[in-house]
Amino acid sequence: MYQDRIRRPALMEKLMTAQQAARLFRNGMTVGMSGFTRAGDAKALPLALVERSRQEALQLTLVTGASLGNDSDGLMANAGVVARRMPFQSDAALRRKINSGEVMFIDQHLSETAEQLRSGDLHGIDIAVVEAVAITPDGGIVPTMSVGNSASFVQQARQVIVEINLSAPLALEGLHDIYLPAARPHRGAIPMLTPWQRIGSTTIPVDPERIAAIVITDSPDSPSNALPPDAETDAIARHVIAFLEGEVKAGRMGPELLPLQAGIGTIANAVLHGLVDSPFRDLTMYSEVLQDSALELLDSGQLAMASASSITLSAAMHDKFIRELEHYRKRVILRPQEISNHPEVVRRLGIIALNTALEFDIYGNVNSTHVGGTHMMNGIGGSGDFARNGALSIFVSKAAAKGGKISSVVPMVSHVDHTEHDVDVLVTEWGLADLRGLAPRERAPLIIEKCADPAYRPALRAYFEQALQRGGQTPHVLEQALSWHMRYRDTGDMRTTSI
Amino acid sequence: MYQDRIRRPALMEKLMTAQQAARLFRNGMTVGMSGFTRAGDAKALPLALVERSRQEALQLTLVTGASLGNDSDGLMANAGVVARRMPFQSDAALRRKINSGEVMFIDQHLSETAEQLRSGDLHGIDIAVVEAVAITPDGGIVPTMSVGNSASFVQQARQVIVEINLSAPLALEGLHDIYLPAARPHRGAIPMLTPWQRIGSTTIPVDPERIAAIVITDSPDSPSNALPPDAETDAIARHVIAFLEGEVKAGRMGPELLPLQAGIGTIANAVLHGLVDSPFRDLTMYSEVLQDSALELLDSGQLAMASASSITLSAAMHDKFIRELEHYRKRVILRPQEISNHPEVVRRLGIIALNTALEFDIYGNVNSTHVGGTHMMNGIGGSGDFARNGALSIFVSKAAAKGGKISSVVPMVSHVDHTEHDVDVLVTEWGLADLRGLAPRERAPLIIEKCADPAYRPALRAYFEQALQRGGQTPHVLEQALSWHMRYRDTGDMRTTSI
Ligand SMILES: CC(C)(COP(=O)(O)OP(=O)(O)OC[C@H]1O[C@@H](n2cnc3c(N)ncnc32)[C@H](O)[C@@H]1OP(=O)(O)O)[C@@H](O)C(=O)NCCC(=O)NCCS
Ligand SMILES: CC(C)(COP(=O)(O)OP(=O)(O)OC[C@H]1O[C@@H](n2cnc3c(N)ncnc32)[C@H](O)[C@@H]1OP(=O)(O)O)[C@@H](O)C(=O)NCCC(=O)NCCS
Repeated sequence: MYQDRIRRPALMEKLMTAQQAARLFRNGMTVGMSGFTRAGDAKALPLALVERSRQEALQLTLVTGASLGNDSDGLMANAGVVARRMPFQSDAALRRKINSGEVMFIDQHLSETAEQLRSGDLHGIDIAVVEAVAITPDGGIVPTMSVGNSASFVQQARQVIVEINLSAPLALEGLHDIYLPAARPHRGAIPMLTPWQRIGSTTIPVDPERIAAIVITDSPDSPSNALPPDAETDAIARHVIAFLEGEVKAGRMGPELLPLQAGIGTIANAVLHGLVDSPFRDLTMYSEVLQDSALELLDSGQLAMASASSITLSAAMHDKFIRELEHYRKRVILRPQEISNHPEVVRRLGIIALNTALEFDIYGNVNSTHVGGTHMMNGIGGSGDFARNGALSIFVSKAAAKGGKISSVVPMVSHVDHTEHDVDVLVTEWGLADLRGLAPRERAPLIIEKCADPAYRPALRAYFEQALQRGGQTPHVLEQALSWHMRYRDTGDMRTTSI
Repeated sequence: MYQDRIRRPALMEKLMTAQQAARLFRNGMTVGMSGFTRAGDAKALPLALVERSRQEALQLTLVTGASLGNDSDGLMANAGVVARRMPFQSDAALRRKINSGEVMFIDQHLSETAEQLRSGDLHGIDIAVVEAVAITPDGGIVPTMSVGNSASFVQQARQVIVEINLSAPLALEGLHDIYLPAARPHRGAIPMLTPWQRIGSTTIPVDPERIAAIVITDSPDSPSNALPPDAETDAIARHVIAFLEGEVKAGRMGPELLPLQAGIGTIANAVLHGLVDSPFRDLTMYSEVLQDSALELLDSGQLAMASASSITLSAAMHDKFIRELEHYRKRVILRPQEISNHPEVVRRLGIIALNTALEFDIYGNVNSTHVGGTHMMNGIGGSGDFARNGALSIFVSKAAAKGGKISSVVPMVSHVDHTEHDVDVLVTEWGLADLRGLAPRERAPLIIEKCADPAYRPALRAYFEQALQRGGQTPHVLEQALSWHMRYRDTGDMRTTSI
């Protein structure tokens, strides 16, 4: 039984139920779990931990790659199993617990978690729980649809629990490229010079002695919850395509562009989908997550290959991916998120970073995380890894949210995730503002006229005019800078009164 | 005449006065000048350009390494010669022109300017003006006390003007290590694995055909204007030392620490000076600027070597440096700022970044640049290169400014240069807050109790308490968040009323 999945016979004796494995956990432990944007997450242990917490106190620090699927984050948060959580999440129930202060959420650049664990800046991992396709005879763990931080968790944990997921086809083996940087100060260069290069092994090495449990599961990843493209995302995509065509025409990049990164969520996926209608060929992706759009571009022939740390697909696209795995496996590489997002590689390759803003201000500062300046949406994710170190940093957003009641272009963002230094281009359905080489006073009119919803432009112009009277490199009317957010909070509409 | 300085005889015919060289410039040109934190700046051309602008329209875009000395920035700004300026400045007169909107200032991460020029994201350099010790027989330019962006300017400019400064001793030759990354997408790894490694040539290569003028000067660099250490900077230094001792004791780094970066200005210099009283040995610096403190640590034997892009010293220390150059040259390397600040190298080496904040907020966001949220002080400089990508990011500040009328710890910073993700440790004379692994709600009490001036603590506590009632990952009372800055603006004192 399971010989094709557990190929080191001695490990058979580690087979147990998730309930048995859950008994390895102690209150206060730090746990590293696989899972990145709903892909490749452990399926059984989260539920078993919730169950166990009904009998005895169990409050854990949960570290993952990024967000989990299967409502695991919410179920664990509601049960009180998760007291501390890092580095990313996107679950409605966990979000409520975070914003009420019941769960401490440490929102991190996704390339940094493994580094901070390695250096001892964060508490070490007690137990790693990693979903796998199989374990090889030499104790190599074959990950499933994401790598995330799993390799680092396995390297560092005192005990490792492997969830063998029978629904993950054996053919996934070979998709992954596992490489971890050495501890500093004795680190060499990361030898990756192109997105398609393989620099590591196909499995996560582990001393079989540290495998404390093997649990069999068979439930699939949660499908992506990205919504389909719409007229606004189509318009954003057209602006991005026109801009990139201009870059090619100006000789700043070749027709194959530079490697693309595209953020999580509905908008980034829809914008990337729009590239199907672009003239570009031989594109490459060096990204964090591959969504449906990446496979569409592989299918359309525009994308030559894609490197990422996870694959998060709709149910239909997931079936196609598995069915045609022999076709895709030559074109897709999954890496640890420390490598997919690594500043060294991102800067060297010259990534075109395409991420989504909740809001941005007239000077080009971006808020990706905090609704109304205070309430966490998901987290900064890898956007900072790419926006700071890439060659071009593009942020997209719809110009308005909540049926026009919120302007995504505001006088001053209520929270800053990306400073004006890290934002080259802003795009909404209305247009694109190319901010390269511009001072804040030059950025403002461009952002207002190109990107803002026309309903908000007069008020933004008035704010900027009034701010100019006050002077400065980045003029502001401090007493009105956050007034739009207050107005929305108090009246449910940013438009109600003029500023 | 000058045979020891101009060793390629054919170049003698390019000798001319600064006034003659100034005639090469045309209105609207982009000019790249040497100079980084007052070191190694061109001395004659700025004055000649000012003179020429009295006769005819001359509005230039001026790109440098960082700030210039000799009041050049102010003189050129006042004469209207500088219409656009990047990536950094620290001149009082230029600052006024920037804040009044007369000069467009593009404030950049210092590692990025050369990259953006290379990729064509910024307008190309028409003329480079570079101060040199000498020109070698093969046309190599030997820089003086800084490298900055000079190698990139020379590589890219259509015409190069060399200012040979006779006051710069020939013995400076050999101090520099010139290496520039290749254009993307065909870039290899930067082969630097230790701070003391040399990876390039000692001179800036240039096709002699492009040398359009050679001008002889002999005025020295402006001395550093950093103020001496005081009781507060001593206290900050003691907190930093105690923290680093704790890191060594916890095994997170060896007794030689990790390579140190220290920011510009009075406080960073004074804090580094304080390390003279520390138990550390065999330290290395991988920084942007070396100030007096770096030489003091070399002298005290604590610092084994220092790598940077410029050396900015007091007059007395400068004399000593020149006098004892044979001693220092084995221990000091000057590199292009793209390399001294490069994300790849900074992350690989695991830099300890020590930079100065104007203000920070109770959640750990840092403002390094904008007084009152609007008025530019100097610029972000390299602080973002190091804080984002280093191993440990420490920000220091005195707890109050202007005789206590300004609290450096505020409810919400009026401008964000460094987000909470990029700030590990905050230090004032009152204490040190170690923020690693903490959520915003955990950071606030620590920052208030450890770092704030006691006179401001009750008001900060009250703000945080009230903010907690509103909820969120990062609780704020939006209508009061910037009220401290408004109160200072309106009354000249943040303390006047309770919040
Ligand atoms: C910003 C982000 C939330 C956008 O997600 P998305 O799915 O593309 O965008 P949507 O338009 O569906 O917006 C998501 C929600 O935010 C709301 N929203 C958008 N702008 C808003 C604003 N300015 N204020 C308040 N709410 C806003 C939308 O109305 C929507 O709400 P709903 O879920 O109730 O319908 C998402 O990209 C994110 O979390 N980014 C940060 C992490 C990141 O960039 N990672 C990239 C590297 S992987
Ligand atoms: C932040 C910075 C201005 C501090 O400079 P410094 O010389 O160490 O510090 P000082 O205490 O002398 O402060 C400089 C001035 O700012 C004022 N200041 C300090 N905090 C202030 C605040 N919160 N609000 C208003 N003014 C403030 C001081 O009073 C002083 O004014 P003065 O010149 O009129 O006396 C300087 O470090 C800087 O420009 N940093 C940004 C760039 C950078 O970090 N580079 C590092 C990589 S090289």
